[in-house]
Amino acid sequence: MKKHAFFALALIGAAPAPKPASAPIPSPGEIVAAAPARDWSAIAPSDVLVMDLAPDVKGKPRRVVIQLMPPPFSQGWIGNIRKLAAAHWWDGTSVNRVQDNYVVQWGDVTEKKPLPVGLAVVGEGDYLADIVYVESGGGSGLPLFVQSTMRSGDRYAQKTAFWLGWPIGIETKTKYSLGATERRMHREPIRPARFDTFWPTHCYGMVGVGRNLSPDTGTGAELYTVIGHAPRHLDRNIALVGRVIEGIEHLSSLPRGTGALGFYETAEERVPIISARLGSEMETDKSPPRYEYLSTESASFAKYADARANRRDPFFIKPAGGADICNIPVPVRRVKP
Amino acid sequence: MKKHAFFALALIGAAPAPKPASAPIPSPGEIVAAAPARDWSAIAPSDVLVMDLAPDVKGKPRRVVIQLMPPPFSQGWIGNIRKLAAAHWWDGTSVNRVQDNYVVQWGDVTEKKPLPVGLAVVGEGDYLADIVYVESGGGSGLPLFVQSTMRSGDRYAQKTAFWLGWPIGIETKTKYSLGATERRMHREPIRPARFDTFWPTHCYGMVGVGRNLSPDTGTGAELYTVIGHAPRHLDRNIALVGRVIEGIEHLSSLPRGTGALGFYETAEERVPIISARLGSEMETDKSPPRYEYLSTESASFAKYADARANRRDPFFIKPAGGADICNIPVPVRRVKP
Repeated sequence: MKKHAFFALALIGAAPAPKPASAPIPSPGEIVAAAPARDWSAIAPSDVLVMDLAPDVKGKPRRVVIQLMPPPFSQGWIGNIRKLAAAHWWDGTSVNRVQDNYVVQWGDVTEKKPLPVGLAVVGEGDYLADIVYVESGGGSGLPLFVQSTMRSGDRYAQKTAFWLGWPIGIETKTKYSLGATERRMHREPIRPARFDTFWPTHCYGMVGVGRNLSPDTGTGAELYTVIGHAPRHLDRNIALVGRVIEGIEHLSSLPRGTGALGFYETAEERVPIISARLGSEMETDKSPPRYEYLSTESASFAKYADARANRRDPFFIKPAGGADICNIPVPVRRVKP
Repeated sequence: MKKHAFFALALIGAAPAPKPASAPIPSPGEIVAAAPARDWSAIAPSDVLVMDLAPDVKGKPRRVVIQLMPPPFSQGWIGNIRKLAAAHWWDGTSVNRVQDNYVVQWGDVTEKKPLPVGLAVVGEGDYLADIVYVESGGGSGLPLFVQSTMRSGDRYAQKTAFWLGWPIGIETKTKYSLGATERRMHREPIRPARFDTFWPTHCYGMVGVGRNLSPDTGTGAELYTVIGHAPRHLDRNIALVGRVIEGIEHLSSLPRGTGALGFYETAEERVPIISARLGSEMETDKSPPRYEYLSTESASFAKYADARANRRDPFFIKPAGGADICNIPVPVRRVKP
């Protein structure tokens, strides 16, 4: 299996690959594995949505775990999602659409199931986060991991960055200066910044809110996740509310729907959702889910992002010199409660 | 199903969506559907590899069709692939690895099956295409669809373009000038260019050659296809030889392997390959496969690429103003023989 094992070295976040004795340069996966405990941030149980699909044909359970985004992102829809979960609203609904290289979508296929009362109607303005000004220098500044402008690298935003563990696009109206750091070849965490608007980006595994034509913005009852190349053209056009942090394979490996847009054409194809619960409601369980993400403000993340952009582990001949925002997935790990 | 149908409008290449009476601006899919016959280019049967997997659990056939790249790309490996197909070498091998958001890999899991004699050993230099100089103006120039430098948009190459139907990265050593066209907001086909090296890019569905550590470059017997966000860091590090043009869902929806790097751990999980044949060998069949791609040098492609970058169909509120090279999939269609 030599050929396989070596091709393997091209990969990240996988099981440890055989380490050549002469290779001192760690892979992205090795950097993550070596990150100290202080570089990991706990994900609050109330920010976790646990969705159990019906078991597969062999009876194996299929659990999909979603992390909801923190403020200031999409909190109107996320508030609705908390209400929907508390009402056990998704129980008995289903996965209804699987379109290759695009999205998996779930919710009430009949569109007749009454929604809980009191859901918010959220405006399109909330596809973007509020204007944020960050003071230069000092501990009060907003920590922000901005990707280098070398190969200035994004067709969908003036700038991309990671913030509070999430990939974001940034559009600035007032010119801002980030100092010499930004002009350096390699990415590193910087503090001073000033910008006008930012928004989460449609990377693989991100979870968004289905909607009708504008000005409708969706309630959060109809959700989708990305299972292909990042459809970044959806950024700022639909609300993103979170990302799948465990079990995405239970969605991404579902048979593609043969109807228009990947909708399943028969009831038998749809995958029943047994339940969807906030992690905080599962606290009395034997095994409440507990996760951590690698803080995007940490030194380990800076090293990891640099290694993703400049692969120097043995498999690679030519480091790319860059990586797009969706090719630097934020590491998430399960931890014991 | 209103909610579904409308969300649908965000998509491309799918079945026709309901067309609002007041929407004169065509979607990318509508532009492709309206492209005249002259804008489509036939794919030669000898450039098509037809791989039949064992039928699925319900007995449904699973055919995967791959288009091989034309010169000057990767011809050493592609020559080997033609020999392997002619020798029916893949018959009885299997799909052995499915790693979520990365690749599906197939070939001889035992690594003991003798290879046909006379396979070429291809050098790493062939990960890039030869230096090409294109004369300015006139009909003799190389037609090339270069993406605008607005939001200059790529972290993996100085420039990206489409050429002969394929997405490529370009690195230039000698400064070249592309004239005013390039500075315009929207993409359009231009002719004059001069560059040093170019290479195909790892977009969704692209097919590449597994290899051992450098200087090994693989033979072409062990192949993989991309089933997730474009792993562009592999560009220039592994040979790309083609792309899946039909049936990728038979690979992308396979259960993910639970072994390291997504390898299947048991023989039962592996998916048998019944046969792999060049289209040219199937000419005596009742239904030899025939395909066309939308010429990337055509006016229709220019319109399509612009529409992918600036969605103006009714679902969208904010056109992105750009699209990365892997978010403009080259349209391919099946045609009657």
